[in-house]
Amino acid sequence: MSGIRNGPRYRTQARPREAGITIGELGEFGLIDAIAARMPAAPDAVVGIGDDAAVLRVADPRIVATTDLLVQDRHFRTDWSGPDDVGCKAAAQNLADVAAMGAVPNALLVGLAAPPDLPVTWATGFASGLAEEAGRAGAHVIGGDVSEASLIMISVTALGTMAGADPVTRGGAQPGDVVAVAGRLGCSAAGLALLQAGLDEPAEPVAAHRRPRPPYPAGPEAAALGATSMIDVSDGLLADLGHVAAASGVLIDVQASLLRPDGPLLAAAEVLGASPLDWMLSGGEDHALAATFPPGAPLPAHWLVIGRVYSGRGVRVDGTNYPGQLGWQHFS
Amino acid sequence: MSGIRNGPRYRTQARPREAGITIGELGEFGLIDAIAARMPAAPDAVVGIGDDAAVLRVADPRIVATTDLLVQDRHFRTDWSGPDDVGCKAAAQNLADVAAMGAVPNALLVGLAAPPDLPVTWATGFASGLAEEAGRAGAHVIGGDVSEASLIMISVTALGTMAGADPVTRGGAQPGDVVAVAGRLGCSAAGLALLQAGLDEPAEPVAAHRRPRPPYPAGPEAAALGATSMIDVSDGLLADLGHVAAASGVLIDVQASLLRPDGPLLAAAEVLGASPLDWMLSGGEDHALAATFPPGAPLPAHWLVIGRVYSGRGVRVDGTNYPGQLGWQHFS
Repeated sequence: MSGIRNGPRYRTQARPREAGITIGELGEFGLIDAIAARMPAAPDAVVGIGDDAAVLRVADPRIVATTDLLVQDRHFRTDWSGPDDVGCKAAAQNLADVAAMGAVPNALLVGLAAPPDLPVTWATGFASGLAEEAGRAGAHVIGGDVSEASLIMISVTALGTMAGADPVTRGGAQPGDVVAVAGRLGCSAAGLALLQAGLDEPAEPVAAHRRPRPPYPAGPEAAALGATSMIDVSDGLLADLGHVAAASGVLIDVQASLLRPDGPLLAAAEVLGASPLDWMLSGGEDHALAATFPPGAPLPAHWLVIGRVYSGRGVRVDGTNYPGQLGWQHFS
Repeated sequence: MSGIRNGPRYRTQARPREAGITIGELGEFGLIDAIAARMPAAPDAVVGIGDDAAVLRVADPRIVATTDLLVQDRHFRTDWSGPDDVGCKAAAQNLADVAAMGAVPNALLVGLAAPPDLPVTWATGFASGLAEEAGRAGAHVIGGDVSEASLIMISVTALGTMAGADPVTRGGAQPGDVVAVAGRLGCSAAGLALLQAGLDEPAEPVAAHRRPRPPYPAGPEAAALGATSMIDVSDGLLADLGHVAAASGVLIDVQASLLRPDGPLLAAAEVLGASPLDWMLSGGEDHALAATFPPGAPLPAHWLVIGRVYSGRGVRVDGTNYPGQLGWQHFS
């Protein structure tokens, strides 16, 4: 069932007194009400939060869907990120996957499993972060589920629709194409490195780690510009371009001199004595979009050309294999 | 990202040698390949498993979406249910929610978080159960995610489409309507009670607990028959009719004499000295569909009339409040 069950009429209720209360004390249905109270109604929902399932009217019959799990102490730490940050990030990473198909995000479904002693304020903060990031992408939370577990586990499914153009997969890159990136690279990794070192400054990389800012509109824009392939940079630029190279059967070469670290990244690198280039090549979680375009495609300035596609296999940096770690893999 | 990343070409690969291997040894991408190898391609997927997101072409622009979390030792026990049973049940409970809107299920997205020492055969068995139950409902697994966690946690999102008729919500029951049920009641609860007593016979209730058999086609059928409200019986008949009564602003009266326990239920009740009626009224997880219809609606025999809708509030059995537990609630 879709556990978030309150209909529109619940939204006019006063919010429960939440300070100091745990979700176990509030109970399932009270928790659902408290979460749903943070969620603006979706204008394109024929049936919204509160029934067995939501019903959404879409303009293009090609619907886009992706799902992710986030596990406490693996994907987030409650001492490093506030509940609103966790909500924001959980939403962002899925909404970015929708954008990476060249699609427009329109809805989220969210599952939250948590221990009964979790403060209600954590759950509502999480809900607010979700709603905020969904709003930034033009999407709405349309359903969900709550459950008990020994640690916090979150599932997010993002739905979107194509907007006229065809989906942009990982498999269409052609030799001769240019490789370009929209959004930041390495900033989230720098923020994570700072937090791991017990630091919370420079503030901007730490903020970027807590709340990635994927460039959602760049996804459909790339599709309209004729992108031949696209991917959300979540595992790390080289690792994700590796997925594109494998799916397309091509070689991708990244030109390191085109990756210009910005001020906050340089500041973090100086503090930690680290390599900003390493973060840009191997750090994921900024959820930039990487795409390939036919040579001569008229790219706006926020699509930064960083390399080129060749015949061959794999990913290289300046023509050679990169010696660092390529990116993140589970169970490794 | 959508972690299940293999494209169609992976499907022709030999399956990895899985006996005795753990998912930690196999690694993320090997695990994804092993899971995806169990999944038949979705004919209506423009982009299937293996990209940032799946893209599905739907015939009716009103898409139906619902999500659930299942947590080990809370929603399932690995000693009571095989991995294929868990996959089947995880799929069924979400597909039934789609059917309960009067919709036709067409896709699942599935997240699996698990400890690295989980045998690969558990994960592939789980995948086979998912695929089998999806197939029973006419749906396909189109995407997913895998992650590491200290216990098994599963998320399932089901997508469907309306098939011409309007969505049937919980909120449309009218005084004078009849209440009818398609599918089994109480059988899963009886099976759970047997397992809790250390028994695995009579076999049929135990099988019903492990693998519910929701009557998926009855959902769109009810919509076409003019159902005024519908719900998936997951928490228990009275609890779920309570949601319908609350959403519709009506009183629902169930006539106990119309709930005729079948042979397996009577056999389980005899073994345990329990009340079959209690299981039928309060047991969830068979995922029967309960709906209200205008008086005189021409109901097929598999829609069993069990009560009637009146002006008022709440749910009664034979005109009085039922003394037993109404159903399941989390955090209680």
